Parts: sequence; structure tokens; C-alpha cells
Amino acid sequence: MAEIKALLFDVFGTVVDWRTSVKEYILDRSPESIKLSVDWDEFIQEWRTLYYKFTSDNSKDGATSVFSSFVSVDQQYRQALDILVDKHGIESAWTEDQKDDIGKAWHYLEGWNDAVEGLTLLKSKFIIGTLSNGNLRLLIDMAKHAELPWDVVLSCELFKIYKPSPRVYLGATDYLQLKPENVLMVAAHIYDLEAAKSCGLRTAYVVRKGEDVGITVSPDQVDYFSSDFVDLYKQLTDK
Amino acid sequence: MAEIKALLFDVFGTVVDWRTSVKEYILDRSPESIKLSVDWDEFIQEWRTLYYKFTSDNSKDGATSVFSSFVSVDQQYRQALDILVDKHGIESAWTEDQKDDIGKAWHYLEGWNDAVEGLTLLKSKFIIGTLSNGNLRLLIDMAKHAELPWDVVLSCELFKIYKPSPRVYLGATDYLQLKPENVLMVAAHIYDLEAAKSCGLRTAYVVRKGEDVGITVSPDQVDYFSSDFVDLYKQLTDK
Repeated sequence: MAEIKALLFDVFGTVVDWRTSVKEYILDRSPESIKLSVDWDEFIQEWRTLYYKFTSDNSKDGATSVFSSFVSVDQQYRQALDILVDKHGIESAWTEDQKDDIGKAWHYLEGWNDAVEGLTLLKSKFIIGTLSNGNLRLLIDMAKHAELPWDVVLSCELFKIYKPSPRVYLGATDYLQLKPENVLMVAAHIYDLEAAKSCGLRTAYVVRKGEDVGITVSPDQVDYFSSDFVDLYKQLTDK
Repeated sequence: MAEIKALLFDVFGTVVDWRTSVKEYILDRSPESIKLSVDWDEFIQEWRTLYYKFTSDNSKDGATSVFSSFVSVDQQYRQALDILVDKHGIESAWTEDQKDDIGKAWHYLEGWNDAVEGLTLLKSKFIIGTLSNGNLRLLIDMAKHAELPWDVVLSCELFKIYKPSPRVYLGATDYLQLKPENVLMVAAHIYDLEAAKSCGLRTAYVVRKGEDVGITVSPDQVDYFSSDFVDLYKQLTDK
């Protein structure tokens, strides 16, 4: 087997727990929101689902041509917030400035409990980087907030197309000057790993609460099947 | 004055001491080189000078069209090594593999004495990132080797053109989602700061031994004039 030299991480759901963090952010920045007749878990799941649809639609070559220019995840989250505010009938709850602020919730997510310890261990042996649909500034703010010790922040924003486009995975391995088989993609979503695998990357699945709901993933679909990042470190280093 | 939210650093000479590090790397990887009739200080200065000529020639729009594709600094350092080996008449000293290895010397430079302490202080208050002609993998290896705690690694490789092209400075501020006046460019080379200034960025000069030789820089040419990164931190935070 080829030696693994770098690990690339999906971020939303894999490294950070967006469900809890976004809800806390909204209620912290707008405490009166608790009085609104809104199921916030559902609201946030819908926000996330709109993001999935957007990135999926824009993962195919030529897709971004429908835009005058590349639309970042930040811009999409903000646009989707308007849609959801309208759908849930809470148009008068927030000013435009408040919505701009709440749209930034995705910059300040908390890592899963093992994230900082696991990434720090993995960083001692490998290059570790993000490979997220999130744009650079979002990932920078998140890393500072959650103290994620990345060696490099790689984003679909650099490639102007979203995962699971092959251009993203192969663009990242090119920047790392590594062959795909020397790079391990880490994600809590099997669709991401299947796309990485089809580009020749190695794959590590990590089981995360609330991710890949309704999907059965078996260990033989991936190179590593792990319960968290510390477990992954142990598997990779035989410790 | 606009609030400074991010600092972008030139790297070679500003953060790391390439003269000492490259010489030590060559003599470490190829100890028998000490017996060659070569002035290594001169050899390394010539290597660096070829790099300056290359990046300067390729900082103008349209310049890269002479290449079939973008040429990275790694590729250029390796090509320049062949030129210098020939010029100094030491063609038989190293194999191709040894030259490939020695060409990587620029990945493993040591920070100036204040670099890690200064960057760590600055990181506590601002986003800190590279903005170097060096390619991403070179900057990643260097950061791991010298323990440079970057929030983000930005490189001219992302823009396919070299400093002092305005596209580099403005491309970086775009990725940071900041106006140029909220970003401070830090360098030991006035040409870099003058180019940043013309794009609207703020400027911080740091005096480094061996850099900007023969050039007189006065404090009124820049927003901050500093002796090292700890001094810069004090000036920025009034401590």
C-alpha cells in the first residue's frame, strides 16, 4: 500500500457539530428568537439541506456558468436564510443586519469532542488540511474559534466548483504535490469518500451523530472505518 | 484609520533566514560538498537572484503566457540549480536525485529568532497568513519544519502570477473577505510593500539582516517600521 502523507478533511459534520453550534449562535445573538413559533432544529436542518442542494447542483462542470461568477457558501447560506425566514413566517423578527450576522453562524461552529486532540495527534505524523465546500474566510474563522490546528486550509472556493467534483480532489492533491494514493480523505459522508476514491484517493469514514442518516455504510466500502479522530490516529499508526 | 483585521506576510527573508538554512541543508544532505571549490554564500545568493529575476519577469499580466502552464517556485529553483551547477563547474558532484533533494532546501528554512514568538502573539489578535511567491507545498513543509502557526497559507500559486502583481494582493484580500485597508502586508522588502500600498493595503516594514541591501527605507514610507515581529505586535497593540 502507498504511504499516506497527507489527510484532507471534510469539515461540516465531520470536524464540527453544526446542529448544536448554529442553534446556540442564533439564540445567543438574538435571544428573543426563543419566543418565535419556530422549530429551530428543523429550521437549521432545512438550512443545511438547501446548502446540500446548492453544492450538489454546482458540483458539475459547466454548472457555475448559470452564475455571472462563483457563488460562495457564505453567499448561499445568506440567501437561503431569506428563503427560510419567509417560509417560517418570521420576516419581522430580524433586521437585515441581524440576518447578516446570523448568516455568519456557520463561521463559529464547535469541534466534536475529539477534534482538537485527534487533529493534533494526526498533525504530528501527517500534513492535515481541510477540503471543504466552505469558503476560505469561513474556514479560517472556524479554525480560530474552535482551535483547529490545520497545516493548510483548502476550499472548493479555490477551484470554483463544489464537491463531489473530481476537480476538487485532484486540484487539492496537485497543490500538495502528492499522488492521490498518498492522500487520505476523511469524511462522515460516504458520497464524499466515494468521489474521492474514484479519483484515486484513500478513504477514511468517521461515524458522526446525525450525519449520513438513513444510509448504511459498511467498513469494506472504505480503507479506514473509525469512531473518531483519535481512533483514526491509532489505526494509522498502529498504536 | 481603518481597523487592521489580518496580516499577510512575505516569507523568504521576512519570516525565515534562507541564507543560513539553505547552506546548512546542502552541507547536511551532501557533506562531501564542503570539499568542492565553491563559495556557497555566493552560490546561494545567485540561486536567490535567479528566483528574483524569475518572479519579477512573471509578475506582469500576460507574462505567464510564454509558458505552456504556470511554473511554480519549486520548479524554478530546481531549474536554476542546474544552471548554477553548470556555471560553477560542479556537474559531477551530485546525481539527479541529489539535485532533486537539494532543490527542496527551500522547504526547510528556519525562522528568524523572533518568528514563532512574534507570530503567536500576532495570531492572538489578528488573522495571520502567508502571501508568498513560494508554492503551497513549500510553504506547508516550511511551516511544519519551523513551527510557524499560520491561520492560512496563501500563495501566488493560487493566482498563477507572482508578486508584485496587484492580482496577488487583491486576490488575497478577496479571499479574506476584507477591504484592502483592513489588511496589513508585512515584508522586509520595500518593493513588496509599495506594490501592496498601491492596492490599498496597509504596510509594515521589518528590518532583516541581508535583505534590501543597498536600499534605504525610511519610516515615513510605510505605516509601521519594526525591528522584528514582537516589536510589530507591540506597536499594533500599544503594549
